[in-house]
This record gives sequence, structure tokens and C-alpha cells, in this order.
Amino acid sequence: MKPLAQEDRPTLVQLRSQLMSRYEEYCALNLSLDMTRGKPCAKQLEIAKNLHGLVDGENCFSENKTDCRNYGVPTGIDECKRLFSMITGIDASLIVLGNNASLSIMYDTLMRAMVFGEIDSDRPWANETVRKWLCPVPGYDRHFAITEALGFEMIPVAMTPNGPDMDRIEALVSSDPSIKGMWCVPQYSNPDGFIYADEVCIRMASMKTAAKDFRVFWDNAYAIHDLYPERKRRIPNILELSLKAGNPNRFYVYASTSKITLAGSGIACIAANTDNINRIKKQLSLRTIGPEKLNQLRHARYIPDMETLVGIMEKHAEIIRPKFEAVDTILREELDGLDIASWYKPDGGYFISLFLMKGTAGKVVEAAQKAGVLLTPAGATYPYGKDPDDSNIRIAPTLPSLPDIEVATRVLGICAKLVAVEQLLNEH
Amino acid sequence: MKPLAQEDRPTLVQLRSQLMSRYEEYCALNLSLDMTRGKPCAKQLEIAKNLHGLVDGENCFSENKTDCRNYGVPTGIDECKRLFSMITGIDASLIVLGNNASLSIMYDTLMRAMVFGEIDSDRPWANETVRKWLCPVPGYDRHFAITEALGFEMIPVAMTPNGPDMDRIEALVSSDPSIKGMWCVPQYSNPDGFIYADEVCIRMASMKTAAKDFRVFWDNAYAIHDLYPERKRRIPNILELSLKAGNPNRFYVYASTSKITLAGSGIACIAANTDNINRIKKQLSLRTIGPEKLNQLRHARYIPDMETLVGIMEKHAEIIRPKFEAVDTILREELDGLDIASWYKPDGGYFISLFLMKGTAGKVVEAAQKAGVLLTPAGATYPYGKDPDDSNIRIAPTLPSLPDIEVATRVLGICAKLVAVEQLLNEH
Repeated sequence: MKPLAQEDRPTLVQLRSQLMSRYEEYCALNLSLDMTRGKPCAKQLEIAKNLHGLVDGENCFSENKTDCRNYGVPTGIDECKRLFSMITGIDASLIVLGNNASLSIMYDTLMRAMVFGEIDSDRPWANETVRKWLCPVPGYDRHFAITEALGFEMIPVAMTPNGPDMDRIEALVSSDPSIKGMWCVPQYSNPDGFIYADEVCIRMASMKTAAKDFRVFWDNAYAIHDLYPERKRRIPNILELSLKAGNPNRFYVYASTSKITLAGSGIACIAANTDNINRIKKQLSLRTIGPEKLNQLRHARYIPDMETLVGIMEKHAEIIRPKFEAVDTILREELDGLDIASWYKPDGGYFISLFLMKGTAGKVVEAAQKAGVLLTPAGATYPYGKDPDDSNIRIAPTLPSLPDIEVATRVLGICAKLVAVEQLLNEH
Repeated sequence: MKPLAQEDRPTLVQLRSQLMSRYEEYCALNLSLDMTRGKPCAKQLEIAKNLHGLVDGENCFSENKTDCRNYGVPTGIDECKRLFSMITGIDASLIVLGNNASLSIMYDTLMRAMVFGEIDSDRPWANETVRKWLCPVPGYDRHFAITEALGFEMIPVAMTPNGPDMDRIEALVSSDPSIKGMWCVPQYSNPDGFIYADEVCIRMASMKTAAKDFRVFWDNAYAIHDLYPERKRRIPNILELSLKAGNPNRFYVYASTSKITLAGSGIACIAANTDNINRIKKQLSLRTIGPEKLNQLRHARYIPDMETLVGIMEKHAEIIRPKFEAVDTILREELDGLDIASWYKPDGGYFISLFLMKGTAGKVVEAAQKAGVLLTPAGATYPYGKDPDDSNIRIAPTLPSLPDIEVATRVLGICAKLVAVEQLLNEH
């Protein structure tokens, strides 16, 4: 195949007709496939089948004899903090555990910053007349929804295979004190699956910021979520880097077991340097008498050591790796050489990020939907849901079955070509 | 016995000597008793022993076939909403479920009001230069800690056996638009154990408030927590009352199973009228992809009907009723007729609220502590920890064993008399 844009008009017309006929064949199948969300599939949830029975009315005491059924222990039980230390590489003393859903902990962190400000703030962020936030793009729609609701002007920053564009970030944060922070998914970035380079992490920890209360929300959602048994590079311990760089309060680290054990019934944590975490402990003591500790105990017993943890992640990989590879293979079969699409085949995480010919992503999602294949809305991976290039589509291959993935990706590939051909014909 | 204040000096001196000798006997026992917090005892936690096994890797689907292990269902599963409808008497459609800890849901409600304001607000509460909050006293220290942290000027309002002093409340809220809301524990008030009269509830729902966004945080923590099998009067459905009175957005209702099943591992809820609850659902969708639903499912299965619920509460009552009665009996033995103490023997809830001679509560708590009996700090039941009369002590009889309760209450009674006698001698 040669690049589509180099084809002459008659060839494009013929191609459109072939593609339309393939497209209509799929439409006739009355498909109903959903590739919208990064949800684990039932088989992944079954990996944790032994989690459920690990506490009962007698086996409900933590290692220090705390009755996990009762009130108390506002920062979480020690053995579960150690589990999160294994996951994140961060010292257990710097970790505070919550219930499920790290997203809630991020939201709460920002709400406290709005109402109380940060350690280094002159005033609560709610009292800043202008507040801005950096958003590596493409990124996670739920992150962007939070900063949008809180009235941050979101500034997109391009992602690269080594992490977000640090030249641009340094230029922005050094000159504009209203830029208060930044979203990051540093290990297997959402949706591209990139791993931030050490150099990027060091620059982010070291850079000068005009806002003295600049905060990076370091969402390590895929800390150990490899797709291949060969363990991939890990991001460095960002709390150590920032301490060394003289910006100890800059980073909030988040992680959860949502994609290790059970998506809706995991444990989530926040980690930060000593001053921040002590402040968080004090603030959290107003909000709760303690988190739900039985599930923490269940988790600590289920994953007592690194070997068990790695074994669980390998089981996940065995289930979802073929799905990721199917997406890659079929996209290559349909799109290679046409110069209308690019994507990175990730080594971990939950998504594949597909870039199509500019101006076509929305129409492709629409066409796929008419054929019964539900994709994340185009633009979802950008602040305010607006992809300026109308080019990026996030593919979530974990939930559907392998045969469904294959069909859905085939439909996506056909739609991508069909819309591109139509656009080229219109341009001619 | 006649009132202590009517005794002459020699009698008081002799009494002091007798009391001191009794006090020293207890000091010699090296006691270590804790009556500070309203925590259930181990026996109460054991009531729920069958809760633990009710979900596993196969039995994890809600009645509408939702896999409770996975993401989703942000407002909670239907069968658990029905459980909370049984507990609160409120329609299940007006209920949103969280994880454990209703305190967290109250805190979050106030944080959202600070950042976003309420439906009827002109601006976020954080942007109000002066904000005030009504606090029936004595009340719940954790409530007061939240409004203090959020910068509300807290205005104490006296409790009566029928609920807070409505004349005073109406006068305050009708004239001062900076009074934004009020804490209430309407059923078995914390700590007095009073049940708000219907008339009080009707007036609270109907009163004119200068703040159009006035909110009552209706913490129904002890909705069904009777100490006696004869079912006591229930507060009315406050959402219906407020709708009828033309103030539909006024009340947020909170409840939890913390003192029905497991204190640290219960389920909590918020309930409100249609407009408020729809707004909450929208706001919560930013914070989480869903609550921890397996515990909701566990709870719904454990308490499928009203009969089971009542049976559970009767088991709690059987365990804690003798403790409450021991406190009452021993306080009567030590303090009746002396005119230095008063308390209400509650029919439910978790506390006994003891009023001592003015100016003595702090010293009594101190003396008891020296004898090894830890009581809630005097003043804890008042905003800013300051009881203007230095008179109220909250007794939490549920956690210690019956023998411990008896000894601790005896020590408390002796200390109350000793400090009173010393104060009278100083005044003479």
C-alpha cells in the first residue's frame, strides 16, 4: 500500500466503494461491542477469587491486634501500607490508605487545596481569581473532568514517548504563577502507555515554578501493570527526587489495587513527603474515624509478598496481552502503509492510543457506533473534550472478549480508512 | 441526702475526708478504664459474624446482575438502598450510598458547599466572608470539629428533651443571613439521647431563614438504635415535612450501618430531596467510578427485611442495655438528692450526658483520669471544646465490660462529689 493521500481520485473512489461494502457487511451483523472504558474483564476479576474468604468474624485482627471491624486506624493498617510500598516503591511511613478508588483521593486532595490551600500557599486555591492546570495530552478524561469542575483553566501539553514535553512545561510554569499543578500518569501513561524517562522525572522534580505551591498529581495507576513477563523499566521514586531537588512538597503520589485485585473493591492510597503526609493525616482525621479496614486486611493477606504480587500481575497479563496484540495486529493489517494512522504498542497499562488523519476521529467514532461498535467519544482524551486535531481515539481492549476485540478493531480500521478516503475525496 | 449546697462547713469537711478516702482506694487499684468514645464492644461486633461470608467470587452479583467486583454503579446498588430505606423511612430513590463512615459524607457535603455552593446559593460558601453555623449543645465533637475547620462561627443553641430550642433558632436564622446551617442528631441525640418532637421537626422544616441556602445536616446516626424492645417514637420523615413546608432543599439526611453491623466496615448514605440528590449524583460522578459494592451486597444480603433488622438491633440492646442501666443506677446511688448532678436515662443511642455542678466538669475528668478512668474531655460536647458552664460530661458505656463500667461510673460519681464538695468549701 502507498499513502492514501498519494492515490489518485479514481483509485480513492474505487477504494471507498470497497470499504463501504465491507462496512455494510459489518453493519448487517447487528453488533453490540463496547471498547469505551478501561474495565477489567470477568476473567481478571476471577484471579482474586481467594481474596474474599480471607477475613471473617474470627480472623479480623491486624498484625498489631487491632480489631479491623471497629472504628479507628485513620491512616490504614501497617501490613496494607507495606503492600502499597511494594507497589509504589515508596516508604510505608509516607503512605496513607483510603477505601477503594484513588480517583476519590485525588478529588479530595484538590478539594482540600481549594478550601485550605497547600502548605506553601498564600491563600486557599478557591480564592485565586485565576487558576490553571497543565494537562499532558492525550490524557485521562476523569482527571480533566475534576480540574474543569474546579474552575482550572486547563493547558494541554504534548506527550512524547519519554513523557510530557518538558521544554514547554518549564517555560510555562516558570513564568505563570497561576499554574498550580499538573496531572501525570507516569508509568504506562493513559492512554499512550509511555513510561516517563528518568530525565523527565528529574526535570519535573527540579524545575523552578512561579507558583510556590505548584503540585504534581502523580497518578501511578499502572505502577506494575506490565503486559509482558520481562519486567519493564520503572519510573524512579519521585518523592526522593523532589526531596533531593529541594522541592519536597511538590508531588502527591496515588496508587490502587483496582487493577490488581478488584476494580470496584480495591484499596487506594496517597503518598507524599513527610510534611505533606502529616498535614493530610491531620486533615483526614476530621473526615473519618477510619477507613474500611477489613478490605485492607483482606488485601494484605492476599498479597503478602512481592512474589505473589508479580504472580498476580502475570495472570492479568496472560488474559489481556492477547487482546492488546489483536488490536495491534488488526490495526496493522488495516492501516499500515496508508499514512493515515499511528499508534504505540504499549508494554503495559490499559489503553492503546490511536491517532488518525486529522479531522476524522469524531466521524470514525460515529461510523463505528452505527456499526454497533462503541468507542470512547473522540476528544475525551483532551481537556474540555476537545481534541484540536480531531485525531485521537482511546481504545480500551481489556473488557471485551478476544473475538469481540477482533471484530471491533476490524470495524474501527475500516471506518478509519473510509472516513479518510471521504475526506481526501472532499479535499480533491 | 440533702442538697450538698445546704450542708454546713463541718459536714462538708467530713464528707470530703470520706470521699477522699474512697477515691484513694480506687486510685490504689491502678485502673485503666476508657469511657471516651462511642465504640461498640467486641460482643456487638460478633452479632454480624455471618456478614463476612455472604459474598465470594461466585456470589458477587447484585439482583440486577451487576458484577459488584467491577467499576460502576456510582450511587450504590438497589437492594442496599432499600436497606437504608428501611433504616431511615426515606424513599430508596432519594438515597445515595457511599462506603463506610457517614461522617465522611457529611464532611464531603460541606466541602462541596464551600467550593460549589448550594442550589440556592449566590456564591460558594468559601466566598462568604462571614459564615455561621448553629450547634445544639451538648452535641457531637466530630461535627463541631468539621465546621470549626471550615471557618464557621459556631453558635451554640440549648438542647431540650424535645429537641433544640426552636424559639432561639427561629430568632437567629430569621435575622442573620450568614447563618448557613445547623447540625442535628434528631433520634437519640448525641449525647443526651433525646428524640426531637414532631413539633420541633415541623418548625425546623417550616421556619423562615434569612439565608436562602440554609441547610440542616440531619445526622440520623441512631435511627433505630433502641435500648428497649418497646419501639420508641420515631422522628418524622423530614424530607416530606420540608417538601410540604415549601423548603424542599433544606435537609441532608445521613445514616449508616456502623452501629448496626460493623463500626469500621459499615455502609453509609446520604438522602435528600430530588433536586439536591440529583445534584449530588452529578457531583459524585466526578469523584468516583463507584463505591465499594461488595460490602453493600454483603449488607443487603445480611439484612434482607425489617424483621432481621429489628432482630439485630435487639441483640445490640441486650448487650448494651445493662451497661446503660449500670451507669444510671450507680450515678443515682452516688448522686441522687445532692442537687449537684442531672442526667437523662436514654431509651436509645450511644451516650449518657451528665451535667455536674457548674465549674466542676473539667476537674472531675481530671480526677477520674488520675484514678485511671478515662472520660471524654470536659467541653468536648461544645463548639471549640468550651462548655461555658464547665458542667457537661459525655459517658460512653458501650465499649467497656459491665464490671469496668460499674467501677468507672463509681469513680466518676465519687469524683463528682469530691470536686463539688471542694468547690463549696472554697466558696464558703
